[in-house]
Amino acid sequence: MTYCVAVRVDQGLVMLSDTRTNAGMDNIARFRKSFTYHVPGERAITLLCSGNLSITQGVKTMLSRAIREAESDPEVETILNCDTMHRAAQLVGDAMRTMQGRYRESIAMDGAAASASIMIAGQRRGGKPRLYLIYSAGNFIEATEDTPFFQIGEHKYGKPILDRIIQRETSLEDATKAVLVSMDSTLRSNLSVGMPLDLTVIETDSFDFRVRTRIEADNEEFAMISQGWSAALRKGFEDLPNVLD
Amino acid sequence: MTYCVAVRVDQGLVMLSDTRTNAGMDNIARFRKSFTYHVPGERAITLLCSGNLSITQGVKTMLSRAIREAESDPEVETILNCDTMHRAAQLVGDAMRTMQGRYRESIAMDGAAASASIMIAGQRRGGKPRLYLIYSAGNFIEATEDTPFFQIGEHKYGKPILDRIIQRETSLEDATKAVLVSMDSTLRSNLSVGMPLDLTVIETDSFDFRVRTRIEADNEEFAMISQGWSAALRKGFEDLPNVLD
Repeated sequence: MTYCVAVRVDQGLVMLSDTRTNAGMDNIARFRKSFTYHVPGERAITLLCSGNLSITQGVKTMLSRAIREAESDPEVETILNCDTMHRAAQLVGDAMRTMQGRYRESIAMDGAAASASIMIAGQRRGGKPRLYLIYSAGNFIEATEDTPFFQIGEHKYGKPILDRIIQRETSLEDATKAVLVSMDSTLRSNLSVGMPLDLTVIETDSFDFRVRTRIEADNEEFAMISQGWSAALRKGFEDLPNVLD
Repeated sequence: MTYCVAVRVDQGLVMLSDTRTNAGMDNIARFRKSFTYHVPGERAITLLCSGNLSITQGVKTMLSRAIREAESDPEVETILNCDTMHRAAQLVGDAMRTMQGRYRESIAMDGAAASASIMIAGQRRGGKPRLYLIYSAGNFIEATEDTPFFQIGEHKYGKPILDRIIQRETSLEDATKAVLVSMDSTLRSNLSVGMPLDLTVIETDSFDFRVRTRIEADNEEFAMISQGWSAALRKGFEDLPNVLD
């Protein structure tokens, strides 16, 4: 399983993913699900992947190959040189369709699921920060002011705190805290979501990563969030009125 | 959808259910999912139902018919006269198997799901408070000290608070608060779970219902829990340390 969450607020973008993958309960491994692409001062992009790992790795390979080809042939369109973030989402969607077309049927015959989804979040100079969610079919939706966050993978445990906190006016600081709390709730309730975590934060109009870090299991700041939240919930619960006479 | 939760702590049993049913998004109705059975001073039992409504209503009808028959023929075994709570769970499981055997195939041919699950919680004189979860196949599991609560239906949103609070030593008051907070989180995140709610509380060795009430949408105590919890989460969130420099 996987849990990835991406938030778009006025101040920028916050992306967080876990690193656990599993093929069945007894085949657990660690894979990065968050990937960054950067042209300093021009664009900063994060990709978050969930679902069939062979499919999402294939998509990433196609995107990277195009970027390498563009070094010698500037005509090749890539997520680093395309005109808009919307076009970048299309390129990811096209790669997804190619991979699904190649493997979906044979994967299904093998009794496994080829489905996958990818979020792409970023900003290029001249455009606004954008966040897209790309489905297995290559189609995609964009986060809006009404729905300023997307989740993929095991989304339910971590959704209530996002529903309560995240709005377009939410500060980048609070959005970061909220995705960490959301991940903490998910880690507690689903064993197939696991540390370490990959966090990226892109401030609006910076075209750079304010944060691009791996949060290990012994990270003190995350422990403070996790323990602080536990204590706050317990205190809040104790303070609730008693409803039995 | 449905959300039902039942807790067994040392001090007794707490059961809570919503009342919304839906066949698709546009066919929403209100049905009771919580049913009580009582022999004053001898046993008190609550049933909580989720899944295919025709199946669970059929099970309930079979249980009720047996109780009526037992009035003239004491040889008929029912959940109100059987020797143990374990036997009562078996009787519910048997009724489930009968209903599934009768309709599962034709329901599947119609493209719908016959699956259902039922929780039975109660105590009879001479025994301990017990909580069982009965599956579509009629098999069942019992809540233990390690896992003192069960949920059926839309369980994920409301699970984190139960994971944090409920232990066998938890007071009946706190268990009741916890299931109400758990329901509140579920109501906020899933539209197909809806008010009013049905709450029952059975105190250990009382063989009676300490609470057996319907909580309507305008219930002031539930509003206090809901608003108090919202405020506590917001306050707790604000007090968390900021992780961005």
